[in-house]
Amino acid sequence: MAFTSNAFSPSLSCNLNTKINSSTLKPSPHGFFQAPSKISVRGLSSVELNRARVAVSRLSRLRICATAAELMEAKAPTIVDVDLGNRSYPIYIGSGLLERPELLQRHVHGKRVLVVTNNTVGPIYLDKVVDSLTRGNPNVSVENVILPDGEKYKDMDTLMKVFDKAIESRLDRRCTFVALGGGVIGDMCGYAAASFLRGVNFIQIPTTVMAQVDSSVGGKTGINHRLGKNLIGAFYQPQCVLIDTDTLNTLPDRELASGLAEVIKYGLIRDAEFFEWQEKSMEKLMARDPDAVAYAIKRSCENKAEVVSLDEKESGLRATLNLGHTFGHAIETGLGYGQWLHGEAVAAGMVMAVDMSYRLGWIDSSIVKRVHGILERAKLPTAPPETMTVDMFKSVMAVDKKVADGLLRLILLKGPLGDCVFTGDYDRKALDDTLRAFCKS
Amino acid sequence: MAFTSNAFSPSLSCNLNTKINSSTLKPSPHGFFQAPSKISVRGLSSVELNRARVAVSRLSRLRICATAAELMEAKAPTIVDVDLGNRSYPIYIGSGLLERPELLQRHVHGKRVLVVTNNTVGPIYLDKVVDSLTRGNPNVSVENVILPDGEKYKDMDTLMKVFDKAIESRLDRRCTFVALGGGVIGDMCGYAAASFLRGVNFIQIPTTVMAQVDSSVGGKTGINHRLGKNLIGAFYQPQCVLIDTDTLNTLPDRELASGLAEVIKYGLIRDAEFFEWQEKSMEKLMARDPDAVAYAIKRSCENKAEVVSLDEKESGLRATLNLGHTFGHAIETGLGYGQWLHGEAVAAGMVMAVDMSYRLGWIDSSIVKRVHGILERAKLPTAPPETMTVDMFKSVMAVDKKVADGLLRLILLKGPLGDCVFTGDYDRKALDDTLRAFCKS
Repeated sequence: MAFTSNAFSPSLSCNLNTKINSSTLKPSPHGFFQAPSKISVRGLSSVELNRARVAVSRLSRLRICATAAELMEAKAPTIVDVDLGNRSYPIYIGSGLLERPELLQRHVHGKRVLVVTNNTVGPIYLDKVVDSLTRGNPNVSVENVILPDGEKYKDMDTLMKVFDKAIESRLDRRCTFVALGGGVIGDMCGYAAASFLRGVNFIQIPTTVMAQVDSSVGGKTGINHRLGKNLIGAFYQPQCVLIDTDTLNTLPDRELASGLAEVIKYGLIRDAEFFEWQEKSMEKLMARDPDAVAYAIKRSCENKAEVVSLDEKESGLRATLNLGHTFGHAIETGLGYGQWLHGEAVAAGMVMAVDMSYRLGWIDSSIVKRVHGILERAKLPTAPPETMTVDMFKSVMAVDKKVADGLLRLILLKGPLGDCVFTGDYDRKALDDTLRAFCKS
Repeated sequence: MAFTSNAFSPSLSCNLNTKINSSTLKPSPHGFFQAPSKISVRGLSSVELNRARVAVSRLSRLRICATAAELMEAKAPTIVDVDLGNRSYPIYIGSGLLERPELLQRHVHGKRVLVVTNNTVGPIYLDKVVDSLTRGNPNVSVENVILPDGEKYKDMDTLMKVFDKAIESRLDRRCTFVALGGGVIGDMCGYAAASFLRGVNFIQIPTTVMAQVDSSVGGKTGINHRLGKNLIGAFYQPQCVLIDTDTLNTLPDRELASGLAEVIKYGLIRDAEFFEWQEKSMEKLMARDPDAVAYAIKRSCENKAEVVSLDEKESGLRATLNLGHTFGHAIETGLGYGQWLHGEAVAAGMVMAVDMSYRLGWIDSSIVKRVHGILERAKLPTAPPETMTVDMFKSVMAVDKKVADGLLRLILLKGPLGDCVFTGDYDRKALDDTLRAFCKS
């Protein structure tokens, strides 16, 4: 095995059984052990090599002790399955997965691909994704459409740009749409895939914590209407979700925290043990400790996959995933899309839902305190913005998708930590009291 | 039983076993036997009475000989089932069905209904439909949105008017959308229902032959893009299709003929016996003979329902329903939406597909002749408009939904009458020859 290298990418000479550890890798000028930048070994295919490189890269930053052969196996991605009969699909989770072309390529059936991304994520990852789709696969051609970044562009006008590109490129029913970006891109690309020629293949490559732990999984797609969030869309499942945790390296801190709001949500509604782990691990998560982040994503995806498998179309159980979202959507719509990040609004919304649950006598004060505590440690808001009024909340909440025959149903905590209910059967006074407690007017 | 009457609406006095025939009804000044205009009988509900009135009305124009009790039973609608597992639904076919509230009401689950119609059909039938939805059912409230009439409005801007109305009216997930109109209204309302809150209930009330025999059945919904027809949409099945054949009384002749193009299509692709019946009955169909029209609708719906049950998402068989449509869509898109009616373009398209099938040696000349003959008797075009060029055809056909990995697949006749194939395996020269034969340049 021969590694070519430069000063900052050390080389080593080994065979498949050679131990790779700190004595076989030179430290970089910054004191880290760096992985070789390039590997070429006779008898191994480029895909296998790439796996080895990724594995070395990751392990060299952690504890460096493995054989080259072990490294090649070590990076098999974690797979969480979403069980939906003949529409089941895998969620791949791991480091370096964008450099594993076989993962994406096994889910592309035709010869044409359209990558939908935005002007923040595209410049960083588009080339890598195109390479992953086409490496060793010259028959596949890839188009792309780059949308403006932000929740305020999650609208019909922007969606039409995807259709325009697909139609002008003469894509046909056997094409695949790939969503590369956060929740907005995933939701829009998914809805476009659901609607283009009445439905084409679709792959999610989420690049934010928010999208990786929540929005990319489960097939909810759609756009906003000026009067409310996600009011136009489809349930449409992807062929696979590919979560390369390395993409989080370029995520702003505020976006990281926003995603953690949904991670915290899973703990509150159905997974007390996970919540307790988060209470122990929040500083690690905020510091992007790779193992902690990977675990949080995996455990969140497992929770989401289980709920979606049991109730794909949200006839009941799935609605519980919306803890804090009814209040949160009102904040997002009331402030104007994009002012607060989705997770920030959800965090404030969860505090309101928890406050209301407490007023109803359904939870004890220790839970209220723990929710405040963990959100504060995640640097998330624990109250809506001061400009929100009771009337603004009420007017947006009236068009919430969980209204049934005029009755607003809410997700509220009830019982010990990790238990919740989805119900319209609550004292209206508690809702009014909560709104008044959090609004100046 | 007591009938009140005026000079032109004779009355008779009878009980449930009274024979109703020409001796019990007075002839009108025009020589017809007319049905009573109003019935009020103790012990019978208004729904049953209404059924009796409709039955009398219809039978009095045909052969008048039945008991009142028989009349009340006689008008049970014909039901064709579309078998799609837990998404199966009935197609009700018959005269006077809009005056049978129980048919619609059994498919409305929530308290809110949005009727989507256009400015041609709305003024004639909207009140009737609202009455049918609400009679004896005061908890249901009905909103409506009236769109401009015509294929050229089958676009995203017009679709947004439906979403605007639904959201402004604060409709929720338990609401029902009702499409009242022809194919354009059915396709748009269906796509809106598929997308609003990611999917709400949906009922089709088609009022044109085109919609009754084809577009309202099978769940294809969508809108046009400036570059091609029906490129954006969803497969979304209704709760039921209600075909009141009386609505055809107000249909212009040109629209009637347009619908017959699809009726003829069923004969050509899979039902030779039906085609032969049409050859015998075309003059009756053109004269709107109620029995002939009802039979044509029923047989068409049976054919469509069978195909859709076997291949809902058009992986193969269902594509055969598009005989002539690839050429036809090129005509519609090339001329500008709305210049030719859909069935007119399909008729010319079928002639072109038949011409190509003959050039390939797949059918004999007698079929070519019979297709020309029946379309002429239906007063449908047998050639595309003179302004169409070979390039116009090719450019639109390149974005057809049946293109797969760059190969245009077509529905062509092959073998005896009633047999067809869906294939990309044909001599390109035959396609070129057909295009050149029908275009001046």
